[in-house]
Amino acid sequence: MSLIVQKYGGTSVGDPDRIANVANRVVKGWRDGHKMVVVLSAMAGETDRLINLAKELAEDPDPRELDVLLATGEQVTVSLFSMFLRGQNVPAASLLSHQARIYTDRSYGRARIIGIDTARIREELKKNRVVTVAGFQGVDEVGNITTLGRGGSDTTALAIAASLKADLCEIYTDVDGVYTTDPRIYDKARRLDRVSYDEMLEMASLGAKVLEIRSVGFAKRYNVPLRVRSTFTSNPGTLVTAEDEEMEAIPVSGVAFSKNDARVTITRVPDRPGIAVRLFKPVADANIVVDMIIQNTSIDGLTDLTFTVPKGDLKETLEIVNPVAQEIQAEQVLSDESIAKVSIVGVGMRNNAGVAARMFDAMAAAGINILMISTSEIKISCIIEDKYGELAVRVLHDAFGLETPLPQKR
Amino acid sequence: MSLIVQKYGGTSVGDPDRIANVANRVVKGWRDGHKMVVVLSAMAGETDRLINLAKELAEDPDPRELDVLLATGEQVTVSLFSMFLRGQNVPAASLLSHQARIYTDRSYGRARIIGIDTARIREELKKNRVVTVAGFQGVDEVGNITTLGRGGSDTTALAIAASLKADLCEIYTDVDGVYTTDPRIYDKARRLDRVSYDEMLEMASLGAKVLEIRSVGFAKRYNVPLRVRSTFTSNPGTLVTAEDEEMEAIPVSGVAFSKNDARVTITRVPDRPGIAVRLFKPVADANIVVDMIIQNTSIDGLTDLTFTVPKGDLKETLEIVNPVAQEIQAEQVLSDESIAKVSIVGVGMRNNAGVAARMFDAMAAAGINILMISTSEIKISCIIEDKYGELAVRVLHDAFGLETPLPQKR
Repeated sequence: MSLIVQKYGGTSVGDPDRIANVANRVVKGWRDGHKMVVVLSAMAGETDRLINLAKELAEDPDPRELDVLLATGEQVTVSLFSMFLRGQNVPAASLLSHQARIYTDRSYGRARIIGIDTARIREELKKNRVVTVAGFQGVDEVGNITTLGRGGSDTTALAIAASLKADLCEIYTDVDGVYTTDPRIYDKARRLDRVSYDEMLEMASLGAKVLEIRSVGFAKRYNVPLRVRSTFTSNPGTLVTAEDEEMEAIPVSGVAFSKNDARVTITRVPDRPGIAVRLFKPVADANIVVDMIIQNTSIDGLTDLTFTVPKGDLKETLEIVNPVAQEIQAEQVLSDESIAKVSIVGVGMRNNAGVAARMFDAMAAAGINILMISTSEIKISCIIEDKYGELAVRVLHDAFGLETPLPQKR
Repeated sequence: MSLIVQKYGGTSVGDPDRIANVANRVVKGWRDGHKMVVVLSAMAGETDRLINLAKELAEDPDPRELDVLLATGEQVTVSLFSMFLRGQNVPAASLLSHQARIYTDRSYGRARIIGIDTARIREELKKNRVVTVAGFQGVDEVGNITTLGRGGSDTTALAIAASLKADLCEIYTDVDGVYTTDPRIYDKARRLDRVSYDEMLEMASLGAKVLEIRSVGFAKRYNVPLRVRSTFTSNPGTLVTAEDEEMEAIPVSGVAFSKNDARVTITRVPDRPGIAVRLFKPVADANIVVDMIIQNTSIDGLTDLTFTVPKGDLKETLEIVNPVAQEIQAEQVLSDESIAKVSIVGVGMRNNAGVAARMFDAMAAAGINILMISTSEIKISCIIEDKYGELAVRVLHDAFGLETPLPQKR
């Protein structure tokens, strides 16, 4: 008997028939004797419907109230799902965030889970019930409803799996696993049987939309085996797990791609200690994630500072950065939204020399100019003009031979 | 400066434009310096939409899960409403039942409010915020979501008004007050300026749909002045208030009418002590409200017992009563759904002899046969064949001259 947490996304519960279909999959696990916790998203399209409703009433909806509104989406799904199970004589109970006691901070719209008191979930499991939990949402310490941002249901599932020390967390979605790159961009993309937490973290942070990044962080930190698979096939999907030797033998596992970033450049910044903190602390305080930061070598005590932020946060970032730039007597603040980020990811990069050179070489051969570079232990990212984005993906996928599964990887 | 609780029904908040319209009414009160608590229903049609969704997944939806589902209706309205206010720079906060701490028993679908901890509402009012509370719902002692049944938002409003010792509770609806009878049945119906709590209680219990009966009970018990008025006019509506001498001078204030009852007859019941309790206790335990009970004089130690229950509860009632009838060796259990109840109501009835006679006389003159009679201090109800229902209303309205306001009633 295992304790399994399953998460089903919006398309998997998109209408009553699909809810019934998913429920039957859950019932199978339950009849096999497993303890089942099911985290559900809102029905596909519902969140957008609610956002549109909000926009009819407020140009810029209040974040607290927007979360109250959006939270109804998952509430509908979990109740319908539990109803269906009960109609099949399977004991079930839905829990909303204040009942499942999923506590978050108060960053409406992108709250972070700070803890889960699993007492109520355990109590329901003890009664042999299938527990369905509304994904995507939490409550702060005084009971205000918060939401975790798009993809937050993955985080809910992993946070619950970690808190319950579940044997497995399965993320059901409309794709059947993690691919070497987005198959819509390159048809030679290949599904990976296994990928390490770190690779998945990099891929998620680089724009691969299969898994929400915080959820992978939970999985890694608490070592929860995580499987990404499709609701609509019986394909085993991709297992996200701890790193092993086989994984390390391959220099590059995948090519990630994103058009979600915008670039901000502050020119002729006085190169003094404390300048960076004056610029970036207020940005961080606004919960805006700065990705790449590049500072050129200074000339005459002045330097150019360039960094990227999510496109959606560009306006707010500029509002924060502009007055600071004036204060520190920088020359000007420029921004550019027509950029793309293409990255290669692989734990094997650590032991394989020349990966970066091969990447730059392939890009140059295709005539793609690199605007910014950033590296971590297991990834190399390049910012390029967005019109070259898809081309770069195909070029890199070919350059690292990703269409062919390497023999040592089972 | 007054503390005012306002409740707006489903048609009043039926679409974004109407929500904005209602909100402007609330803002007016707030700008006039009043403390405002606003209780909202789900948008018109939303509850039915959700019920239909539930029925696609379960023939007989689990009551706990159905309440979780239905509670989203009001959640949507309060968040949209508060968003609109905040968009107008009016401070506002929505509270759901677990936040407003509206505690109920665990009778899903028809829960009763057992207490409200108003600390959070008061806290928000202190911040000079317009507080919007999701009507129709509560939480039990472990945080399960319950709903109060149709019309439950009225109860929420009155319970909050009573708990806060509000100066006034205004119930906004799609009719502009309380009428001498349903204007759709008789066009001579007249709006009453004032009506007593007791009269309103009788009218509500007799099927007048203007106010939910429990809400009137709260108003009476805590002496909350209550005004019923229309969202769509500036008409002052009807004030429901404590009885006074002027009211007592009029024998009959209104004619109520309902087709919601079904009749159950158990024939040849042994007339022994304890029989009634054996029949009615399990019915009451199932939270089914028995209205009229009539027991004929017994002949040879056997009697016929007839009672009425809401039509929607007839099936369950028969399932409860049938085995008991067998146990006590009664002859048979009959039921009849084609009945109507017509009633006259008035606090003046106490001091006016001959009201009943005038009622029966008018019915007889119109050829309407009376099947059951039940009286209270301030009302007389008759069960008749349903085909005569509307006729009876008109006949009684005329017989008591209700189309003309009596001169002593200002």
